[in-house]
Amino acid sequence: MNISDLRRELDLDHAAQEIYQFAAELYPICRSITGNGFRQTLSQTQSHIPLTLYEVPSGTQVFDWTVPREWNIRDAYVKNSQGDRVIDFQKSNLHVVNYSIPVHQKMSLEALKPHLFTLPDRPDWIPYRTSYYKDSWGFCLTHQQLLNLPEDEYEVCIDSTLEPGNLTYGEYYLPGETADEVLISCHACHPSLANDNLAGIAIATFLAKQLSQIARRYSYRFIFIPATIGSITWLSQNEDRVDNIKHGLVLSCLGDSGKSTYKKSRRGDTEIDRAVLHVLQHSGQEFEAIEFFPYGYDERQYCSPGFNLPVGCLMRTPNGKYREYHTSADNLEFIQPIYLKDSFAKCLAVFSILEHNKTYLNQNPKCEPQLGKRGLYRAIGGTSGSGVSEMAMLWTLNLSDGQHSLLEIADRSGSEFDDIKKAADALIENDLLKELL
Amino acid sequence: MNISDLRRELDLDHAAQEIYQFAAELYPICRSITGNGFRQTLSQTQSHIPLTLYEVPSGTQVFDWTVPREWNIRDAYVKNSQGDRVIDFQKSNLHVVNYSIPVHQKMSLEALKPHLFTLPDRPDWIPYRTSYYKDSWGFCLTHQQLLNLPEDEYEVCIDSTLEPGNLTYGEYYLPGETADEVLISCHACHPSLANDNLAGIAIATFLAKQLSQIARRYSYRFIFIPATIGSITWLSQNEDRVDNIKHGLVLSCLGDSGKSTYKKSRRGDTEIDRAVLHVLQHSGQEFEAIEFFPYGYDERQYCSPGFNLPVGCLMRTPNGKYREYHTSADNLEFIQPIYLKDSFAKCLAVFSILEHNKTYLNQNPKCEPQLGKRGLYRAIGGTSGSGVSEMAMLWTLNLSDGQHSLLEIADRSGSEFDDIKKAADALIENDLLKELL
Amino acid sequence: MNISDLRRELDLDHAAQEIYQFAAELYPICRSITGNGFRQTLSQTQSHIPLTLYEVPSGTQVFDWTVPREWNIRDAYVKNSQGDRVIDFQKSNLHVVNYSIPVHQKMSLEALKPHLFTLPDRPDWIPYRTSYYKDSWGFCLTHQQLLNLPEDEYEVCIDSTLEPGNLTYGEYYLPGETADEVLISCHACHPSLANDNLAGIAIATFLAKQLSQIARRYSYRFIFIPATIGSITWLSQNEDRVDNIKHGLVLSCLGDSGKSTYKKSRRGDTEIDRAVLHVLQHSGQEFEAIEFFPYGYDERQYCSPGFNLPVGCLMRTPNGKYREYHTSADNLEFIQPIYLKDSFAKCLAVFSILEHNKTYLNQNPKCEPQLGKRGLYRAIGGTSGSGVSEMAMLWTLNLSDGQHSLLEIADRSGSEFDDIKKAADALIENDLLKELL
Repeated sequence: MNISDLRRELDLDHAAQEIYQFAAELYPICRSITGNGFRQTLSQTQSHIPLTLYEVPSGTQVFDWTVPREWNIRDAYVKNSQGDRVIDFQKSNLHVVNYSIPVHQKMSLEALKPHLFTLPDRPDWIPYRTSYYKDSWGFCLTHQQLLNLPEDEYEVCIDSTLEPGNLTYGEYYLPGETADEVLISCHACHPSLANDNLAGIAIATFLAKQLSQIARRYSYRFIFIPATIGSITWLSQNEDRVDNIKHGLVLSCLGDSGKSTYKKSRRGDTEIDRAVLHVLQHSGQEFEAIEFFPYGYDERQYCSPGFNLPVGCLMRTPNGKYREYHTSADNLEFIQPIYLKDSFAKCLAVFSILEHNKTYLNQNPKCEPQLGKRGLYRAIGGTSGSGVSEMAMLWTLNLSDGQHSLLEIADRSGSEFDDIKKAADALIENDLLKELL
Repeated sequence: MNISDLRRELDLDHAAQEIYQFAAELYPICRSITGNGFRQTLSQTQSHIPLTLYEVPSGTQVFDWTVPREWNIRDAYVKNSQGDRVIDFQKSNLHVVNYSIPVHQKMSLEALKPHLFTLPDRPDWIPYRTSYYKDSWGFCLTHQQLLNLPEDEYEVCIDSTLEPGNLTYGEYYLPGETADEVLISCHACHPSLANDNLAGIAIATFLAKQLSQIARRYSYRFIFIPATIGSITWLSQNEDRVDNIKHGLVLSCLGDSGKSTYKKSRRGDTEIDRAVLHVLQHSGQEFEAIEFFPYGYDERQYCSPGFNLPVGCLMRTPNGKYREYHTSADNLEFIQPIYLKDSFAKCLAVFSILEHNKTYLNQNPKCEPQLGKRGLYRAIGGTSGSGVSEMAMLWTLNLSDGQHSLLEIADRSGSEFDDIKKAADALIENDLLKELL
Repeated sequence: MNISDLRRELDLDHAAQEIYQFAAELYPICRSITGNGFRQTLSQTQSHIPLTLYEVPSGTQVFDWTVPREWNIRDAYVKNSQGDRVIDFQKSNLHVVNYSIPVHQKMSLEALKPHLFTLPDRPDWIPYRTSYYKDSWGFCLTHQQLLNLPEDEYEVCIDSTLEPGNLTYGEYYLPGETADEVLISCHACHPSLANDNLAGIAIATFLAKQLSQIARRYSYRFIFIPATIGSITWLSQNEDRVDNIKHGLVLSCLGDSGKSTYKKSRRGDTEIDRAVLHVLQHSGQEFEAIEFFPYGYDERQYCSPGFNLPVGCLMRTPNGKYREYHTSADNLEFIQPIYLKDSFAKCLAVFSILEHNKTYLNQNPKCEPQLGKRGLYRAIGGTSGSGVSEMAMLWTLNLSDGQHSLLEIADRSGSEFDDIKKAADALIENDLLKELL
């Protein structure tokens, strides 16, 4: 069974339900770039795929950066003088500024205010804030909550620890026929945010699960990492292996209702760029292609000039481009199975191109071969008995001069890759095409 | 006398009448890819140009193909029980499926029907059908005719032969100053179809006739071949000579009222491509340029990857893009002298560019030469006394650095080729330009 | 003090007033391609910058051309029979066809008319005419004047000399850190025409004056020459030095109210082309970029194929594209300080790019460096404390792979050059960037 069989046989609706379900299971966990929330996320991922977990000690130098202390949190609240929790970490982990240092003291509203963050123009949403690299603490709350806070003496408690420990990441390596590999990277460091991390995590998990069950031409490496520091750590620890990476995708924001967006690799015209764009162009849906820029997700690191890897980023609505971004409104309603399904299917279509995109040599390059005597030619305009498009065969023969891969033939002819692939298969079977080695 | 003189002196209206007349003479012949109809066509062409005829025996292997048996037909009809010819080959050779095997038998309408082909949405037109590579027989008729056929016992007769013989093609070679050659190819295998083959045949014939009478830089090779199997046969038999082909054109569908269409060579940016596009761009008429695709006429074979010759295809409305295509409506009314004339003139303009498109070296490359002291500069914006554009001279001087041919200079400067050629001539005469050898 | 300091501190309004004032001082002089009017112009320029004057004798061969005889004029008029000057050189030097040979005779209106030039569709304007290379004489006048001339016997006098002498040009060389030089060229041979030569002369003079007072990376060479014959003479006399010219600009027509126009160098994508286009693109104003063509100003000679120098031409409304061109209406009202100021500032911005446009190497090319620990990263979307854009730093780091200059980084990122330069400075200070040598 190869990826074409998989794509034909897979029940995508069922897969989408599982993906959504898995995202929902992970939703309540208070993740951060280190700590038990991240470990818990990987542990639940292990119920689907046998992730290997790596622990990198705080203080480890990773290129220009240092692995930070590990952060863990048990509870956090602001209590009023009646003892009511007016801000309660138990209700939403977004209420605490991520990486807040421990605090426990009483203070006036005035003293507390500089530590409170709201979204005045979205008075019902809790913002998501972090302070990874500067010791501080704070609470996030809805603006409505803030307006309702009277003058009072408040008990402020963040029961967190920020101590030497480890940065954790998970990796799942699927060996293929060749050591050349496809890297799939997703960040898993955001707490209760659905589109901006759970969608990517859940889709990556089920892609890995499916790919593990089929014959693979490429090796695939799935990594689940904290954003920025995670990819920097991974690259630092795996520097000698990055040459194997022939194609890569960062997955994020894949569950919202927006159109698909592909941010190209820094090189801009690598095979992964062309494969993703081919899939989007033939999706029958609107999509957006954007040029690389050195901001966004972990493609920033993979595409730093010292690596310059062929890694793009597949999203639906990009980070920062939807209002729910980094707020409590990026929740389980904001992502939907139908969109996860579409994103998942597109990823499989991309992998299918990568798996099948070879370059062939026309074995009868002088004039066209006589397709009719081989039963490959019924009537132009139609399809041969085997469902293979004759135009696709003619294109594949004409361009299989050793200079054009099947994807290039598909793009130049305006055909879908799958049609060109089918044509190539029919021609190979008739000894009219041979792989260029 | 060179091609510029020819273009100046030729009576195009008269030529167009001759071309149309010749097409009309060829119209009644029942051509096919082999046989006496094809020979008869070449024989009538010989009354204009001394074609050499080649006969290639049935069974000859030509690359992946085999030269088929020769087909000839004397008569064909369907008679009703009263003995009336209800379908009659004598009235139109389109009535018989081309390459039909012989048949003579009586049958019911029901038995006959699978052998009858009509165009229900064009009830007055006879379709054109062939069955070259599969033994079968049939009749084509108007849908109106079919509807009028009652139940009856019909006598069906196709008095044809399909026997070992030859594939015939014609060739006319005009040697030039150099052995580098321009290939002009047209298919001549369609029976009574005017735009889709007679227009090309007649224009090619008169182009050859005219070129034979002038001094030529290039050698020209005109070939009159059956489609597909003819170009495959020709390439197979002349494989050692194809390196001489520096430019080529397939001519077809040149007599209808549609705008000119140029289908580029597979390489897409060869000199013939640029020459034809230059002529069309400066024609003052709408035109269409289409990228190469591996279907259509014999450019499919010339542009197969093993040859990849610089051969494009000049048409007016392309095959399959007009409703009369491959029907009895592609007749002598569908083509008109005015359109044949326009196509003919464009071909001559293309040849004129090829003949004159050389690369020169500015002999005074440092600053402009003083054109005034040579009488070449009267007043900018106007023309010098000799009718040479000053801007054309300045462009030609500026770009004659050995990297730009006259055609490239014309294209970059937005000038007509003829103006740049005139400027170059004036500069050569004043020793300001020398051919790059 | 470098060019950035200069741009920050310079009072542009004051500079524009000085530029306009200088143009006004030069306005009355009767310039030509040789003679005392040209010398007088250079002499007045010397009150601002220490121009070196060169005298090239008549008869000197300069490539294909010969330095012409020197022309000087003292007076010219047409008197009617009452002794009234009906055409008077003292009122406008445009009244005499430039380079008119001496004449003094009486003649009828009929005999005079072939020597009179007017603009019938602009009846109040005097045209500007020359006859450098053909001995002749003539007067230019308003069409209104012509219509008012009665039949009469006229005394015609042109008190000019056309004798062996010299062609004069001025040069100001400002040595920089490197011998690589920027050439600034302007023609100074037009008499009372403001936009088409005084604007260029005056702006070039004050650019030179300002550049002389700052530290320079490049050497700058300002040349004040007669059009065509001047650049040909200069190139002929300085042929061994032209390899030093790395960038160049011809300045002309810089004082009118039209939008800025940049005519690219023949090569079309040199650094000066990209620098000027960058400035225009970020000017917040409409502008026009036009491809090189071998007509116009002295860029024709600098871009002749034997030199092919990276020299473009900066203008506002190009020569021939405004109705006042080469008429008495191209006067001191047609140019205005506000437009001279804008042109002047754009030139400084272009020089600033050239001065600062270096290529750097990211010293931490593997992943991003941690900007935060260096105080360079406050909050994305904003700017760091030092006013440096974080996106500009990320772009500069990402593209400083040795293949991209700062200008290329600015263009690819859509940033202003100055922002990228500031980012680079901050990164250099933090040892994150090093110049590629």
